[in-house]
Amino acid sequence: MTDTLSTQFQAALTRCGIDLQALQGTDITVRSPIDGSQLAQLAALPAAQMPELMERATQAFKQWRLVPAPLRGELVRLWGEELRRTKADIGHIVSCEVGKIVQEGLGEVQEAVDICEFALGLSRQLYGKTMVSERPGHRIMEQYHPLGLVAVITAFNFPSAVFAWNAAIALVCGNPVIFKPSEKAPLSGLATFKALERAIARFTAQLGKQAPAGLAQIVLGRSDVAEALVDSPQIALVSATGSSRMGRTVGPKVAARFGKRILELGGNNAMVVTPAADLDMAVRAIVFSAVGTAGQRCTTLRRLIVHREVKQALLDKLLPTYRSLPIGNPLQSGTLVGPLIDKASFDAMQNSLAQALQDGGQLLTGGQRQLQQEFPKGFYVTPAIVDMPAQTAIVRHETFAPLLYMLTYEELEQAIALNNDVPQGLSSCIFSNDLREVEAFLGAAGSDCGMANVNIGPSGAEIGGAFGGEKETGGDRESGSDAWKQYMRRTTNTINFSRELPLAQGIQFG
Amino acid sequence: MTDTLSTQFQAALTRCGIDLQALQGTDITVRSPIDGSQLAQLAALPAAQMPELMERATQAFKQWRLVPAPLRGELVRLWGEELRRTKADIGHIVSCEVGKIVQEGLGEVQEAVDICEFALGLSRQLYGKTMVSERPGHRIMEQYHPLGLVAVITAFNFPSAVFAWNAAIALVCGNPVIFKPSEKAPLSGLATFKALERAIARFTAQLGKQAPAGLAQIVLGRSDVAEALVDSPQIALVSATGSSRMGRTVGPKVAARFGKRILELGGNNAMVVTPAADLDMAVRAIVFSAVGTAGQRCTTLRRLIVHREVKQALLDKLLPTYRSLPIGNPLQSGTLVGPLIDKASFDAMQNSLAQALQDGGQLLTGGQRQLQQEFPKGFYVTPAIVDMPAQTAIVRHETFAPLLYMLTYEELEQAIALNNDVPQGLSSCIFSNDLREVEAFLGAAGSDCGMANVNIGPSGAEIGGAFGGEKETGGDRESGSDAWKQYMRRTTNTINFSRELPLAQGIQFG
Amino acid sequence: MTDTLSTQFQAALTRCGIDLQALQGTDITVRSPIDGSQLAQLAALPAAQMPELMERATQAFKQWRLVPAPLRGELVRLWGEELRRTKADIGHIVSCEVGKIVQEGLGEVQEAVDICEFALGLSRQLYGKTMVSERPGHRIMEQYHPLGLVAVITAFNFPSAVFAWNAAIALVCGNPVIFKPSEKAPLSGLATFKALERAIARFTAQLGKQAPAGLAQIVLGRSDVAEALVDSPQIALVSATGSSRMGRTVGPKVAARFGKRILELGGNNAMVVTPAADLDMAVRAIVFSAVGTAGQRCTTLRRLIVHREVKQALLDKLLPTYRSLPIGNPLQSGTLVGPLIDKASFDAMQNSLAQALQDGGQLLTGGQRQLQQEFPKGFYVTPAIVDMPAQTAIVRHETFAPLLYMLTYEELEQAIALNNDVPQGLSSCIFSNDLREVEAFLGAAGSDCGMANVNIGPSGAEIGGAFGGEKETGGDRESGSDAWKQYMRRTTNTINFSRELPLAQGIQFG
Amino acid sequence: MTDTLSTQFQAALTRCGIDLQALQGTDITVRSPIDGSQLAQLAALPAAQMPELMERATQAFKQWRLVPAPLRGELVRLWGEELRRTKADIGHIVSCEVGKIVQEGLGEVQEAVDICEFALGLSRQLYGKTMVSERPGHRIMEQYHPLGLVAVITAFNFPSAVFAWNAAIALVCGNPVIFKPSEKAPLSGLATFKALERAIARFTAQLGKQAPAGLAQIVLGRSDVAEALVDSPQIALVSATGSSRMGRTVGPKVAARFGKRILELGGNNAMVVTPAADLDMAVRAIVFSAVGTAGQRCTTLRRLIVHREVKQALLDKLLPTYRSLPIGNPLQSGTLVGPLIDKASFDAMQNSLAQALQDGGQLLTGGQRQLQQEFPKGFYVTPAIVDMPAQTAIVRHETFAPLLYMLTYEELEQAIALNNDVPQGLSSCIFSNDLREVEAFLGAAGSDCGMANVNIGPSGAEIGGAFGGEKETGGDRESGSDAWKQYMRRTTNTINFSRELPLAQGIQFG
Repeated sequence: MTDTLSTQFQAALTRCGIDLQALQGTDITVRSPIDGSQLAQLAALPAAQMPELMERATQAFKQWRLVPAPLRGELVRLWGEELRRTKADIGHIVSCEVGKIVQEGLGEVQEAVDICEFALGLSRQLYGKTMVSERPGHRIMEQYHPLGLVAVITAFNFPSAVFAWNAAIALVCGNPVIFKPSEKAPLSGLATFKALERAIARFTAQLGKQAPAGLAQIVLGRSDVAEALVDSPQIALVSATGSSRMGRTVGPKVAARFGKRILELGGNNAMVVTPAADLDMAVRAIVFSAVGTAGQRCTTLRRLIVHREVKQALLDKLLPTYRSLPIGNPLQSGTLVGPLIDKASFDAMQNSLAQALQDGGQLLTGGQRQLQQEFPKGFYVTPAIVDMPAQTAIVRHETFAPLLYMLTYEELEQAIALNNDVPQGLSSCIFSNDLREVEAFLGAAGSDCGMANVNIGPSGAEIGGAFGGEKETGGDRESGSDAWKQYMRRTTNTINFSRELPLAQGIQFG
Repeated sequence: MTDTLSTQFQAALTRCGIDLQALQGTDITVRSPIDGSQLAQLAALPAAQMPELMERATQAFKQWRLVPAPLRGELVRLWGEELRRTKADIGHIVSCEVGKIVQEGLGEVQEAVDICEFALGLSRQLYGKTMVSERPGHRIMEQYHPLGLVAVITAFNFPSAVFAWNAAIALVCGNPVIFKPSEKAPLSGLATFKALERAIARFTAQLGKQAPAGLAQIVLGRSDVAEALVDSPQIALVSATGSSRMGRTVGPKVAARFGKRILELGGNNAMVVTPAADLDMAVRAIVFSAVGTAGQRCTTLRRLIVHREVKQALLDKLLPTYRSLPIGNPLQSGTLVGPLIDKASFDAMQNSLAQALQDGGQLLTGGQRQLQQEFPKGFYVTPAIVDMPAQTAIVRHETFAPLLYMLTYEELEQAIALNNDVPQGLSSCIFSNDLREVEAFLGAAGSDCGMANVNIGPSGAEIGGAFGGEKETGGDRESGSDAWKQYMRRTTNTINFSRELPLAQGIQFG
Repeated sequence: MTDTLSTQFQAALTRCGIDLQALQGTDITVRSPIDGSQLAQLAALPAAQMPELMERATQAFKQWRLVPAPLRGELVRLWGEELRRTKADIGHIVSCEVGKIVQEGLGEVQEAVDICEFALGLSRQLYGKTMVSERPGHRIMEQYHPLGLVAVITAFNFPSAVFAWNAAIALVCGNPVIFKPSEKAPLSGLATFKALERAIARFTAQLGKQAPAGLAQIVLGRSDVAEALVDSPQIALVSATGSSRMGRTVGPKVAARFGKRILELGGNNAMVVTPAADLDMAVRAIVFSAVGTAGQRCTTLRRLIVHREVKQALLDKLLPTYRSLPIGNPLQSGTLVGPLIDKASFDAMQNSLAQALQDGGQLLTGGQRQLQQEFPKGFYVTPAIVDMPAQTAIVRHETFAPLLYMLTYEELEQAIALNNDVPQGLSSCIFSNDLREVEAFLGAAGSDCGMANVNIGPSGAEIGGAFGGEKETGGDRESGSDAWKQYMRRTTNTINFSRELPLAQGIQFG
Repeated sequence: MTDTLSTQFQAALTRCGIDLQALQGTDITVRSPIDGSQLAQLAALPAAQMPELMERATQAFKQWRLVPAPLRGELVRLWGEELRRTKADIGHIVSCEVGKIVQEGLGEVQEAVDICEFALGLSRQLYGKTMVSERPGHRIMEQYHPLGLVAVITAFNFPSAVFAWNAAIALVCGNPVIFKPSEKAPLSGLATFKALERAIARFTAQLGKQAPAGLAQIVLGRSDVAEALVDSPQIALVSATGSSRMGRTVGPKVAARFGKRILELGGNNAMVVTPAADLDMAVRAIVFSAVGTAGQRCTTLRRLIVHREVKQALLDKLLPTYRSLPIGNPLQSGTLVGPLIDKASFDAMQNSLAQALQDGGQLLTGGQRQLQQEFPKGFYVTPAIVDMPAQTAIVRHETFAPLLYMLTYEELEQAIALNNDVPQGLSSCIFSNDLREVEAFLGAAGSDCGMANVNIGPSGAEIGGAFGGEKETGGDRESGSDAWKQYMRRTTNTINFSRELPLAQGIQFG
């Protein structure tokens, strides 16, 4: 980075309470995708230290689970305050570390703030049910109780928000958290975590020793520490974000030890554009959801399923927009498309592109590396659109880059079938102003994704809804709605306060 | 069986619509645990036919998911009617096939009836949420949609009810069911299934071809067909009841293919008896929950954790009752303890007993084989109580027989620790009239089981609550409360009906 | 009626268990609107007997509230069975007594059946909440408990279903019911009530004396007995269906004695037809919802708000259909429009018509008395449509007859404003296939009615949703969703099971 | 007040943004109950100005209802921040104006803060239901929409919190609020309102003109302005706190115009102390709940229902504590009992005392005026306990003062009957460690109050539960749980997205 940027970055780290000296090591090299420059070299925690760390969390659990939930809510309230206070700095770190444009860096921290406030509200709810019993002098109730240790393993592309989604809910639910950020983006995670540490300090100053040591821990480490979390019976819930390939390994491991898991895995998200669509809105939505974060959101738009009738009209609007997208340094105002995370990502995109063309696809725009001179170690690329004759294997594969496949349909049923005929099931959307089309898409025989939107793109979910997807996306949910229930254990209590002992189902015994 | 019994059994089969001739084969031999006599010899479905069968269900799903849920409810209503009509017969088959006493056989069918009525109520609910959006002109909602094929793999000990629990909910939720009953108890399952077939016929007569062929299928087969269900990506949900060992295999397999599962596995259920208990009630509860179904319920009481102060008083009441329990032919009125399911079960009990004594346990009563002369191939046993000095490995192991370990405690915390210090987490209970003790047991630091009861035994749940347990019990739930959500897929819909395209988290893009 | 009809009617009464001899008196004359013939002359219960009757119910309450809700559910299940069994007969009585066509008579009884099954499902739910406390060693829960006596005062136009809606829910919730049917339609109510009596008898035969005398009582009487119910502090909940004028009296009376009430009062229901509507569907919906039950449903379509562009096209389809509607004896197959309930109703319609024309309205079709020769005492009328220049006072008034006002709009906002600019707020609908129009109509600034439908008429609600309306419709809800909560009392319980006594809000005291 | 106090009070007003000059008038004289000194003289808003004020709110409603709920939540979040910032000052004003001790003044503001955070959480929820339809191609949903203008009329005893309870929820739900504080405590209300005004200003600075003028208005006035709010059809919801007498007038008025209301009226709250009670805890609970706020909470403990066996033991602990209660200037640290609000209140207490003695009651302690010399115009009194032979009329009457009646019972049923045998139904509690006693008290035949607690006093509810009571307490709820639903209108939407028009209940028409 330029000296100016570097100075800004250091200042942001400092304001976030991060002391790189103290973390220094040779295990993890953090580079900025902006120019490939090194941001930090960090020591990795040896996996051998994980048992001790988990033991601290286990001890913390015994105490934290008994702290009243509204007090636990006070902790996330303070966390939200700290995040607000350092929003610009954390956003800046996110931009430097993963290449998000400024607005998206800020938006990510806002998500963290939002979930803290949502969790604060939950802290006086966590509702179970009271219910009636078939036996006189009996009643039944369900209570939700703290679950245990929650490990949060995140990916590079949401290095701040995904930790907050999980930790805010987990903490309110009474659980300690252990956070393993992506090796590619540990500093963003650390900045978010530091805000939590400050919140814990304020909480303690205010309320005494209610927040035990070990309540929140971060692990800067490599895959061996992630594996330790996945395999340990001490970890009650593994919340892991990453590829479907990762999930295919993690899921069975956790299942084999009867643990709980939240898997947020690959997406292959489509938009259906029907003749009843507002094409101008569709174009704007396509652009944000296909090229935002340089196509590296799990909810990025990857497949555009357009009705034959409106295909040309849509392209007439879409291609000029695509061709004029400001690509470049994400810290610069005006930039909309920043760099890919690294060379491997760029290569994967090129390979997918090549395969798509080999499958009969026609490259409509994009796919070329950009700014190579300015940033020889930065991987900038023009967002690509490939018109595909069919949904071939490469289309059914998630390529984590701004590569949009275009497919054509004639009947809505075909469009829905195309939407569903991929292994992933995260997000999807339809652009149409036709009620019947829209409801068909949202209905029982419609999109099979965890999220199905109307007249907005597949990405950019609000925190109030449940977030996650079906099939190879993992089948789990986090963030809003009742996702908090995954972070608790439910106990069903039947209470007999009579002097009799009747049996259910009218059984007479003895 | 005697000729009389045999005649009754045949008549019950006939009234239930079962034609053994048509099912005849050499693969599966069904024996009555009452006397070891052969009840039937059945052909097993070759695993090679599973794809075709699942394909039929897949076709059925495409249609059934679009049938309005209240109409789907009408089907389970009719099933409930058919079950009521043949309650005595199905109960009798259950008794003959798995050795339950008459009352328990009837109670099991009553559970099937109850769940049909619960599911009927659900058929006009299946509630998702509408919710507010942070963007003007937007709204969010969650819908629950039919999930796909549901495989129900049951164990011998609830050969009728567990299928009904799953199928009634699955059908109302819009899913076809494939039922693989235990090889040890296929006829009870078949009788329950036949009632469903009759309901489908009535439904069709009433409402036309809304219930497609392939909506409900039964598979009489061996473990290979169960494996086919577990492994097939066509099966959206595998609901399997059985041992933790089984779950340890099934869970990872289903996770590896991103399927959903409901596992109802082993239990090692305890009762804590405190000085504030009503001992007379406790004794009655112990007897029913420890010896009912000859100790072969997953919720059977297996561990009695008694305060030192009341231990002797409790035993003074309990032992005479145990010693006078009427053991014998479960079809005879007055019998409370029927046979074990087979010799392997008896042997396992003997081995556990031997190990317990070796661990320092003292046999207080029971453990002897009974009625060997009358029923040389029937395995009757006097229910056993072993006073254990500590919770040794054998106590932490589930032995599926009427073998009750007694442990002693002094502080409630110890009792709770003992309750929790087993790998399983199904059911538990406390006998106490002391509010603080009771709430401690039900609280965040109390019993870690899925069910925690007060002043009733751990077994005999009502269908209105969620049924299931934590840890090696599987972590899932079925039956009442919101367990139906496992049988559906949730879709979160954000709908933009404005002419603008604002982004969440206040992001500005372009 | 003809002798044949009379014989059929008598037979239906008999099969429903009604003995007119025993009820005979001189107070209430029941006439069939079909031909004005007398169906029965009944004795009215003197108001002086109300205290005794309410006392019986009060005693019943003490017992019934302690009967487990699932057992209470068994009672409504049996009621549902009895209603199914006599569906044709009750439907016939409804047709004879209030003039509904056969299909509508049957549909009304089906509604009664449906609510019984919905209530059966509720009987294992009646969910309150468990929730967390801000104080350690505390928890909070809400329980819903039986409320007390429920009086159900119904109108002539749903003489069977409305009682069932209320009574099925009330009974499951643990409350006795006292039913005062309309003086114009006591026999339909009585037939429905008799089915409940038989259910109670079966319940008692099955379960013993759990259903106390006084649990369900019917009061054939005049307005003085209704007033007694409204005024008595013993009646916990008054559920009254009728005119807004009635509600304006009843509401304050009940409020003055701190009672609860469910008021289902007048409607003035509109349909908005936009240029994006499917006009053929709209026409069919208009016809059913405007002329069904001869315009005497509270949800009858009374105002048609049509976009200027499609007005003529709509009329071109609508008027021929209106002109060819089969009007006549509702018992005859093929009839779609039966008689008005009485002469007063006919006169009111004529007066409204006259006023509308005076206000500048143009009569497009209908309004003439029919079949006067055949039925000199039956009031048949051709359904009328009046094209109105503006929403004058008469349009804002509910005329309980098949009189449809047509209004014209240009912008959707105008249509919504017209929809809302009436004192009543029951039901409404929009016909449009345009998502934005539809969502605007359903949204925060859309229809202000309790029900707002899309592409179906305003009438004919399913029992699963909450039924009722805002403003002069009363503001209350009955039937499905969480309407059952009105029939219970909620108690919020904070339970301290610690040994400390901390105060909420962190207050230190002493 | 002393000069020091007066200076502190003025400074608090100033920091809260209150300019007494600007409000000056001759209509309302605000006096401190501490010493009877005048705190302010204020102009009352003439009732004639109410229409204009309500019109402003009506215009605000049109805009605010369309602001996304999470943005509305941002407003209450800011309000919470402002309240935290001025907590000490508002608490001080409360103490000066109504005589609460410092801790209680602070606790009241904390309640306001808590509800803001609860409402913030709600702002992403406001959940309605999606549900299934019985017709193919249909679905049903419920939405909750903003209701309209909410008038909040409060009493002197919670001059800050009750406004916040209502306004925070109302604002999040999309409604403008008009606040009429008690004439006895307008400054506390004003200070709370000013914090809201600052929040609105910050909100506007941050988010632009989304918070319309007229969104929140305060009315300093007399009963005529309260009446204007009660009577106006523009006010959708009247939330009024006060006496049952007031409610008896307000309820019918609002009902007559089909408005909605939340009435929080009189309480006559009892504690049952059983032989299984922890008497030390009971004593502490009695003291706080009977003498806190000088007995002027609606949830103040007024009746002590003690088992004969423990009566003497309880009194042995209670009377010494009562006799040593520090009575005096509530601003002084250490004081637990401050003054009554005014002379009328003191006189009412004396009258009740006299009547109680005349009824056979025996004065055990208290009832004398205190500190008359120091504060000739302050009405301090020693908290009184009267042992009553029976629950006479005066006991069944709410006297708003620290006057506790003691009643004796022998069987729990008697205690519950005494608890219930008063016209009011707000709060109640039992002290017992006996599960059966506790559950009986909480059960269907137990306490008939809106709140029933265990081992805590009847007062001091947390904001997470629903607050309110049955019978003459009004029957309504505010604060937590689902009380927010009262502040919204529910609309049930049935949406047909098919091309068919089937009718519900299977009706065939035409």
